[in-house]
Amino acid sequence: MEIADLAARIVAGERRALARGITLVESARADHRAAALTLGEELSGRGEALRIGLSGTPGVGKSTFVESLGMQLLGEGLRVAVLAVDPTSARSGGSILGDKSRMEQLSRQDGAFIRPSPAGRELGGVARRTRESVALCEAAGFDIILIETVGVGQSETAVAGMSDIFVLLLAPGGGDELQGVKRGIMEIADLVVINKADGDLAPAARRTCADYAGALRLLRRRTGDPEGIPKAMTVSALEEVGLAELWAEIRALERFRRESGHWARTRAAQARGWFEEEVRRGLLDRLSRDAGPAFEDAGTRVAAGRETPGAAARRLLDRLAREGGNGA
Amino acid sequence: MEIADLAARIVAGERRALARGITLVESARADHRAAALTLGEELSGRGEALRIGLSGTPGVGKSTFVESLGMQLLGEGLRVAVLAVDPTSARSGGSILGDKSRMEQLSRQDGAFIRPSPAGRELGGVARRTRESVALCEAAGFDIILIETVGVGQSETAVAGMSDIFVLLLAPGGGDELQGVKRGIMEIADLVVINKADGDLAPAARRTCADYAGALRLLRRRTGDPEGIPKAMTVSALEEVGLAELWAEIRALERFRRESGHWARTRAAQARGWFEEEVRRGLLDRLSRDAGPAFEDAGTRVAAGRETPGAAARRLLDRLAREGGNGA
Repeated sequence: MEIADLAARIVAGERRALARGITLVESARADHRAAALTLGEELSGRGEALRIGLSGTPGVGKSTFVESLGMQLLGEGLRVAVLAVDPTSARSGGSILGDKSRMEQLSRQDGAFIRPSPAGRELGGVARRTRESVALCEAAGFDIILIETVGVGQSETAVAGMSDIFVLLLAPGGGDELQGVKRGIMEIADLVVINKADGDLAPAARRTCADYAGALRLLRRRTGDPEGIPKAMTVSALEEVGLAELWAEIRALERFRRESGHWARTRAAQARGWFEEEVRRGLLDRLSRDAGPAFEDAGTRVAAGRETPGAAARRLLDRLAREGGNGA
Repeated sequence: MEIADLAARIVAGERRALARGITLVESARADHRAAALTLGEELSGRGEALRIGLSGTPGVGKSTFVESLGMQLLGEGLRVAVLAVDPTSARSGGSILGDKSRMEQLSRQDGAFIRPSPAGRELGGVARRTRESVALCEAAGFDIILIETVGVGQSETAVAGMSDIFVLLLAPGGGDELQGVKRGIMEIADLVVINKADGDLAPAARRTCADYAGALRLLRRRTGDPEGIPKAMTVSALEEVGLAELWAEIRALERFRRESGHWARTRAAQARGWFEEEVRRGLLDRLSRDAGPAFEDAGTRVAAGRETPGAAARRLLDRLAREGGNGA
């Protein structure tokens, strides 16, 4: 299929074309990579969704949350795409989205599109492919894109860097630990949501919510921040309680950020950051291709204290310069 | 002066030679840079200090703290060097250490060496020069190196990345905000110290300490972390109260980390990380030298949505490869 044709079908809303486009984006083959870049250019600027990042460790009920929130949004006439960034997942099973049956209801809806995390063990690569998939979903006319992560390594930062609004999902807990969520996450969350505020867990959910509201006050109060302190809220995805209030908060924050110019600035900065990262990655890829073993060896010598970092780097760079740059 | 001679004088403990070596390290001139790398190699592996990172915003009494702690350590027969990482400071005045008179007593002692932050507005450069200065101070036989930062931008992360133990210094406060300290700092502190626990402020200091102890429990409890939760403690640098207890904590943590192997692993990983960073910086320096305007222009087009990040990066990389790499 010609790329221009594929692009037209994606814009026309053909789900199979979208899935095929994402497969192209996810491929590591050089010819696919070139085609994916062309596809991205064809689709550039075609539609704009609200991109919501969502982080939560296994056990917080994320699938149920996405399913409930997604169904509510479909009920409002919105089209919802769900993507994932999970560098540890093999495509087959490990991913929270690998098993679509966890979101059985949502996955059957016409207005919904669910795609598991691309396979890969290196966050940079997984994040890049998800970023490009986001652009495809936007071109396909989705209104809301939920980008979820299990919070491994730096994946929250990566997801926050491709989101307009970032939500941290937690389960009721003793309030004495951050439930295995990665460092720094409390610093980037726009909203903290305590799920499972139902049945026996409701009191614990309220306590956890109060604990996190306190922690957010402690960590996030900034003089003159017009957005104020991020809110902590409870929901029950299972009983579909609190989702409307959560959605109202998200929309209010979206509106505020659009009107204040924060939105456009963030998107521009994200795009520029992605470009710079692509260039850096490209340069480092060439480094490891042109001087991989030498780079590794020098790192080992430096770690063992047999060479200073500065001198080892200078030697490697000099050698690269002498040999000249040639290649892709 | 020959570099070998300068190195010998630094190892012999000549303060003027050390100061001169650091000036060489801080210079941006290409011939100085080459000489500094040679000096670093000459001195490599000569002595090992305990490197303590210290972060605190202006107003927490950091100078008094460093002075009091430093005097106490000198009293124990230890030699103490104080360096700083502050990318915003002009050499002349802005730096917390620019005015040595703030540490009048310490700066007059034979066993102490105080050096303000190198000038520079770019953290990477400032951090690199401080890192190399640390190595010089170790070769000069200092036992303790305090590396302080005012916590601007990512400077705490940079300082933590060159420290064995990282201390966050705070003043008594309402406990309702993190006193302007940067995001994520609570996640990297090994000890949180509330200064000014004296006179009228003593009760507030104790409250603040309890607040932060709670926050540390919330944020830092990790199942199976053998080091446990980082401690929060009060001190009065002015009245020299609590410093012995603080020092005992630091030494206990040092001992634990040395015995557990954490110490050696961290140092090796830091050295490898610095090497890789030097190589990356070198490659990016070449990029901006060989393709600076094109890189800037492409970034602006991407930010404006006129080009996709992936396609723009590919075009720039292709152009660089075609033009070839030449020149150190």
